[in-house]
Amino acid sequence: MVYHPRSTVNTKNMTNKHNIILQPSGRRGQVEEDKSVRFAARDLGVDIESICAENGTCGKCIVLIEEGRFEKYNIDSRRENLTPVTSVEADYFKRRPKLLKDKGWEVGQVRLSCQCKVRGDVLINVPEESRGNKQIVRKSATEREIEIKPSIRKYLVMMTPPNLERPIADWERLAKGLEASMSLIRAGEENLPRWSDFTIDYACLRTLSSTLREAKWEVTVSVWQDKEVVQVQPGYHEDSYGAAVDIGSTTVALYLCNLRTGEIVAAESEMNPQIVYGEDVMSRIQYTIEHPDGLEKLHKAIIGTLNKLLKQAVKTANKRISESADLASEGVSESGDSASQQISLEDILEMVLVGNSTMHHLLLNLYPKHLGLAPFVPTIHKSVDVKARELGLHISPSANIHVLPTIASFVGADTSGMILAEEPHKQDENWLLIDIGTNAELVLGNRKRLLCTSTPTGPALEGAHVEYGMRAAPGAIERIEIDENTLEPRYKVIGVEGWHNDHERFRGHVKGICGSAIIDGVAELFRAGIVDSRGKFKTKLETNRLRQGPNGWEYVIAWSDETSIGRDIPMTQQDVRQIQLAKAALFVAARTLLKRANLQSPDKIILAGGFGSYIDKEKAMLIGLIPDCELDKVYAVGNAAGDGARIALLNLEKRNEIDSVARKVERFELPTDPEFQNQFMLATSFPHMSEPFEHIAHLIPNREKDPMAKKFVK
Amino acid sequence: MVYHPRSTVNTKNMTNKHNIILQPSGRRGQVEEDKSVRFAARDLGVDIESICAENGTCGKCIVLIEEGRFEKYNIDSRRENLTPVTSVEADYFKRRPKLLKDKGWEVGQVRLSCQCKVRGDVLINVPEESRGNKQIVRKSATEREIEIKPSIRKYLVMMTPPNLERPIADWERLAKGLEASMSLIRAGEENLPRWSDFTIDYACLRTLSSTLREAKWEVTVSVWQDKEVVQVQPGYHEDSYGAAVDIGSTTVALYLCNLRTGEIVAAESEMNPQIVYGEDVMSRIQYTIEHPDGLEKLHKAIIGTLNKLLKQAVKTANKRISESADLASEGVSESGDSASQQISLEDILEMVLVGNSTMHHLLLNLYPKHLGLAPFVPTIHKSVDVKARELGLHISPSANIHVLPTIASFVGADTSGMILAEEPHKQDENWLLIDIGTNAELVLGNRKRLLCTSTPTGPALEGAHVEYGMRAAPGAIERIEIDENTLEPRYKVIGVEGWHNDHERFRGHVKGICGSAIIDGVAELFRAGIVDSRGKFKTKLETNRLRQGPNGWEYVIAWSDETSIGRDIPMTQQDVRQIQLAKAALFVAARTLLKRANLQSPDKIILAGGFGSYIDKEKAMLIGLIPDCELDKVYAVGNAAGDGARIALLNLEKRNEIDSVARKVERFELPTDPEFQNQFMLATSFPHMSEPFEHIAHLIPNREKDPMAKKFVK
Repeated sequence: MVYHPRSTVNTKNMTNKHNIILQPSGRRGQVEEDKSVRFAARDLGVDIESICAENGTCGKCIVLIEEGRFEKYNIDSRRENLTPVTSVEADYFKRRPKLLKDKGWEVGQVRLSCQCKVRGDVLINVPEESRGNKQIVRKSATEREIEIKPSIRKYLVMMTPPNLERPIADWERLAKGLEASMSLIRAGEENLPRWSDFTIDYACLRTLSSTLREAKWEVTVSVWQDKEVVQVQPGYHEDSYGAAVDIGSTTVALYLCNLRTGEIVAAESEMNPQIVYGEDVMSRIQYTIEHPDGLEKLHKAIIGTLNKLLKQAVKTANKRISESADLASEGVSESGDSASQQISLEDILEMVLVGNSTMHHLLLNLYPKHLGLAPFVPTIHKSVDVKARELGLHISPSANIHVLPTIASFVGADTSGMILAEEPHKQDENWLLIDIGTNAELVLGNRKRLLCTSTPTGPALEGAHVEYGMRAAPGAIERIEIDENTLEPRYKVIGVEGWHNDHERFRGHVKGICGSAIIDGVAELFRAGIVDSRGKFKTKLETNRLRQGPNGWEYVIAWSDETSIGRDIPMTQQDVRQIQLAKAALFVAARTLLKRANLQSPDKIILAGGFGSYIDKEKAMLIGLIPDCELDKVYAVGNAAGDGARIALLNLEKRNEIDSVARKVERFELPTDPEFQNQFMLATSFPHMSEPFEHIAHLIPNREKDPMAKKFVK
Repeated sequence: MVYHPRSTVNTKNMTNKHNIILQPSGRRGQVEEDKSVRFAARDLGVDIESICAENGTCGKCIVLIEEGRFEKYNIDSRRENLTPVTSVEADYFKRRPKLLKDKGWEVGQVRLSCQCKVRGDVLINVPEESRGNKQIVRKSATEREIEIKPSIRKYLVMMTPPNLERPIADWERLAKGLEASMSLIRAGEENLPRWSDFTIDYACLRTLSSTLREAKWEVTVSVWQDKEVVQVQPGYHEDSYGAAVDIGSTTVALYLCNLRTGEIVAAESEMNPQIVYGEDVMSRIQYTIEHPDGLEKLHKAIIGTLNKLLKQAVKTANKRISESADLASEGVSESGDSASQQISLEDILEMVLVGNSTMHHLLLNLYPKHLGLAPFVPTIHKSVDVKARELGLHISPSANIHVLPTIASFVGADTSGMILAEEPHKQDENWLLIDIGTNAELVLGNRKRLLCTSTPTGPALEGAHVEYGMRAAPGAIERIEIDENTLEPRYKVIGVEGWHNDHERFRGHVKGICGSAIIDGVAELFRAGIVDSRGKFKTKLETNRLRQGPNGWEYVIAWSDETSIGRDIPMTQQDVRQIQLAKAALFVAARTLLKRANLQSPDKIILAGGFGSYIDKEKAMLIGLIPDCELDKVYAVGNAAGDGARIALLNLEKRNEIDSVARKVERFELPTDPEFQNQFMLATSFPHMSEPFEHIAHLIPNREKDPMAKKFVK
C-alpha cells in the first residue's frame, strides 16, 4: 500500500519497530528491532533460502542492502541500520571474492540475512538465487508468490513414421511417444499415466494427422492435467501461455502469463462493456429479466471484450518479445533464446477467471434472474471448467476455461480469488479480509473456520452519489487534510504535484473529489471538530468555509477559482450522510462476523480491491469504516481477486484448494440477523456509538465537549 | 440366415441331426439327436433359465412347442419330434393348472426344456420368463442378447426450495438431492458417488435454474456414467433413449432404442448421401484430397442424413406410442403407462456409431487422406467420445456420441461392432468372422488370440461390375439353379413368388442379377460342368444357352421375353472372372489368417453383413469363397456391426471390452505377405487349385474328367 506521510508520524509512537521493504516483491511492513533480516522477511511473507540452519555457512540467504532515501516509500535506508557485519559473514565473503566480483556486489552492501539484525529502516533486495522457492513469480505491484505448477505441461515427442509393417494410428503413435517422453522427463515420479490413459481434445484430434506429417513426426505436445492432449505443435516449443482475468462490474483486467515461468507477459484492461446495460449488478440482472435477448447481449458483450483484451495482450507480448530479441541480437540481453518465438492466440491454452456472482453468471451465459430475487441463489457454487470454443473465446479451441467457485449469492468468484491470494485458511491468527466496492465482501477467520458475508455499501465510497464525487482521474482531489485550529483545508489533486498550498498552481485544476478523498474529507471534518460524532455539521464555528448550501450545511474544500468547473467544491451534509450509511453497513457486516466468531477484533485486516489500496487506513478507522485494530496490522493488497485468478492459473493444486475452502466457508446473510437494524443505527456514528476504538482514540476530537464521544472514549 | 430348399436336401446326408428354431430370437441351427432342448438352445446361443440343476422341479425352463409347417424356415415342427413327456414334467404341470390357464398354454405344447430331448425338427418358443438373463432384449431379425447396462440412468430428485436461511446454489442443491436419491435406489452398492463428485454438462447447466423452478424442485435427472448430469426434466420420467447407427458406404441404418428396456422403438435407414461424391471409400477419400471443402461436404452430408434419420425415428416411435396409448385407453394393451409419453429429439441422450475407417473419419470430420495413401494410417484407433453439439447432431446437446474403435486401416469400427456382437474373443473354438462387402474384413481366433485383416473384393459380390448385375431390388434374380443334365436354369426373382418354371408368370419381370444370385450362378455353372475349375466356359456342350457373346462366351439365364429390358440376361466369362478375383482375394485373406494361427480350417465361420445373409453357404463354399468347414458350422448373422453398436449403446461395460479387445487384435496387411501373389493365383480356381474342400467335395463335377479337379479331390 502507498505509505502516506502522516502514517510515519503516527508510527513514531510505536517504539522498537522499523520499516522494512523487500524488493523485488515490494513487500513491506514494520518489524521488531533485533529481528534477523531473514526472519523479518519471512514475517512479511518473503521466504529466503537457507540450508545451514542459520549458521552463516551455506550462503543461500544472501541479501543486498540498498542505500538511500526512497521517496516512494518514505524511507531512508542505511547499511548501518542493520547490526554490524559479523565475523561469520566477513569470513564467508572473504573466501568468495569471485562471487562478489561476478555479481558486481560490494562488501558491506551484501549480507547474510540470517546474521544481520534490524536496527532501523532498510530497503532490502533479495536476489533471485536467495528466494525461498525457486518456482515463484512476483508481480511488481503486489507481493504474491506463486509456486508454478500449471495444468499444462509440454513434452517433445519424436516418433518413427508409420510404415506398412507398423501402420498404427496417429493418435496411438503419439500417445505411446508421449508416454515415453513423459517417463523420461519425469523419471522417478510415481503414477505417471500410461499411453492408453491419455485422451485428446476433439478439436485437437481433428488436425492431428496433418500436423504430425507437417512436423515430420517431431512435435511438442501440450498436456492438460497430465491426461488430455490440448495442443500438438510441429517442432520444439518451451512456452505455453494462459490468461488470468478479473471481471469487475466496472473494469476487466487480463494478465497474459507464461505458464512455464509464471511471468506476466502482458497486462491489459478495459471498461466492462456491460456498463451500458446497467451501472451496477442489480440493474444488469434487471436488464436480463426485462429483455428476452438481455442475457445473450450481456454475455456477448463480455466475451467480445475478453477477445479484444486477449488480442491486445498477444500484441503487447509479441512487441516485448521482438524488442528483447532485438536486444539479444545486439548481445545486450542474456535471455534471447526462448524470447524469439512469437505468440499467437492459439498458444493460449488456459484461462482462469474471477468476478462477482453476477459477472460469473453473465460470463458463463447463465440466467442471473434468481441471483437478483430473494432468496438470491446462484446457479452454481463449484468451479466451472468449460472449453474455450463453448464460450466463443478466440484462443486455442481446446483450451480449458476455469472459473473459480462462488461462495454465496453476493460473495462470488472474486472473493474466492481473494481467499486464494491471501490464504486466511492457512493462518493461526484471525484475519478479516474486506473487498470494498459498491458491494463489499467480507471474510473472517483462520485455518479452523472461515465466515463470510456481503453488504451493499452503495456507490458513495467510489465517489458516486456524492455531490462533487468523481472517479480517480486527473483533476480529482485525492487527499484532504483540515487544520484543526484554522479549520482551513489543504488537498492533493491527481495530476498536480504536491499539496495544495500554492493557490496559483492549483488554479483551474480541481474537478471533484474521488473516493479516497471522500473518506479523508469526512474523517478530517470529524477530527477537526467540524462535524460531530453523529455526523452533524457544527454550525457555530468561525470559518467562512462552513455555510448553508442549497441542500443544508456544507464545508467548502476548494473555492471556485481553484476549480475547472467554476464553482466552489464543498462537502455537504448529504455527503457525510452517504458515507455514514456506507461505513455503517460495512462495519455491521464486520461486527456480525466477529460476533459469530466470538471475537472482539481481528488480528489483521486486509483491504483488497483498488479502493482499499488508496484509502488512508487511519482515517478509515477514525470514521469507523473498518473495525478497531492495530494500525500496522492493516494491509492493503490491491487486486487480490485478480491475483487469486493468476495463482489458480499457475498452480493447479490451488484450484482444488479453493474449491474445497469455498465449500467450507460459512455464509451469513445479514438481513437474517435480527439485531441488524439496531446495530446499523449504532454504527452510523463516528467512529461508533458504542464501540471503543483504542487505536485511533487519540485522534477523536473534543472528547470533553462531545457528549456522544464521551460515552465510549475511556 | 434364410434356409434354402437345397440345403435340406444336403443335410439329409448328416444323420442324427435335427433343425431347431428358437423364437423369438430367431436363432436356428442343427443339433444332435437326444440333446435336451435346454442344452440345444444353449448351443445355439439362447440361454434358458434353470435353478434346479435339470431336476425338472424349478419350472424356470418352460418352453412352448409350436406345431406346423413353417415355410419360411422350411421346417415341419411336431410335438412328437421331442421325447415324450416325462413323469417329472407331467407332475410339474399337473400341480399348476392355474399357470397353464392364465397363460393360455396347452398340455403337450408346454415342456420343461431340461427334460425333453430332440428327435426331429422343432420350432420352439422361449417365453419371456424362461429367458436366461432377465435384462435382455431381442431383435426379431437377428439373435443378439444384450444385458442392459446403459451409460444413462435416471433418478427422481425432490428438493426443498431455497430460502434465505439455506440459499445454496441450484447445482449444489440438485447434486445433494441426487446423491440422496441414488443412494436410496442403489442401496447396497459400493462406491456410489458423493454429491461433490458429480459434474453437469455445460449445456445442461445453462438452463438449470429455470428448469428447477419450472419443475417446482421436483425433477428427473439423467446421469451419464454415474458422474455427469446430462438432462434435467421437470417431473417424473422413466425412459431415456439412445440411437445405434451403422454407417455403411451405401446405407446408413439407425435404431432408436429405449435405454431402460433395450427395446428398439424405431428402425430407419437411408442411402449414404456421400455416394454422390464417390461410390466406394477410395473415391470419397480422393474427393477430400482434391477439393478443399471436400471433407466439410462429406462430413455435413452424413451429419445431415443422421439428423434426418433421428427425426424420422422419433416420428415413428411417437406414432407407435400414440397407437399403443390408444389401445391402452381401450383396455386392450397392458402397458399403457409409460407408453403415453411422447419422445422428443432432446430425449435422445446417447448415440453409438460404427462404420468402416473412412466412414468413421468422415463422421468425425477427420481428414481421411492418410487412410487412402500407403501406409494407410487412420487418425485414431481408440473409441471416441464427443458431445452431440460438437458434431451438429440435433439431439440433446449434452448427449455423448460414442464411436467404436477402429482396428486397422481397413478394419474399422464396423469390425469392432461385429466382434462385440459375435464375441470370438470369448470362445474356445477358433471362429472366422467375415464381413463381406466391397471390402471384406476378416477376424480369426478365440479367447487367446485374435487376428484380423482386410481385403478389397471389388464390387462384383454386390452385383456391380457384373454385366447384368444389380442391387437386391424387385426384378433382381436372387437365386439360380442349373440342371446338370439338361443344362437348363431355373431362378427366383425378388417380388415374384416361387421358382421360375412358369414362363408366363415371369414374363417381363426380370431386370438383372443381384449379388447372392451371382454366387449361385457361378457355383451352378461350375457344378453343372459348364465352366471348369479354372473358370473357363466349356464350349462344346449341347445347349442353346451357351453362346459366343460380344465379349466372349456366355450362358443365358433369362431369355429376353422373360425380362423387362428386352434383352437376354446372360452370365459372361467376364462375370465369372470378376467372381474369381473377388473370391480369391477373400480366400487368400482367410488362408493367411489361418496360416498365421497355425490352423487348417476354422471351427466356425460367421458371415456378417447383408450380403452374407443372402448367399447360399454351400455354393459359397463350392466356389471357394469361404474356406472348407462343416456346413452346419457356417452361420449368417446379418448386420453384426449394427448389432455391435446397439450392444455398446445398451451396455456401457461392452465399450471398455471392445476397446480392450480391439487393441489386442493382431493386424496383418496382406500385401506384406511375400506369398500373396502365388496364393492368389492358386485361389482363383473353383474351389481352389491346391486345397481340399471336403465338405462340398461331393458337389464338384466331372471329377474324373477335369484334370485340375483331379489333383486335389481324394
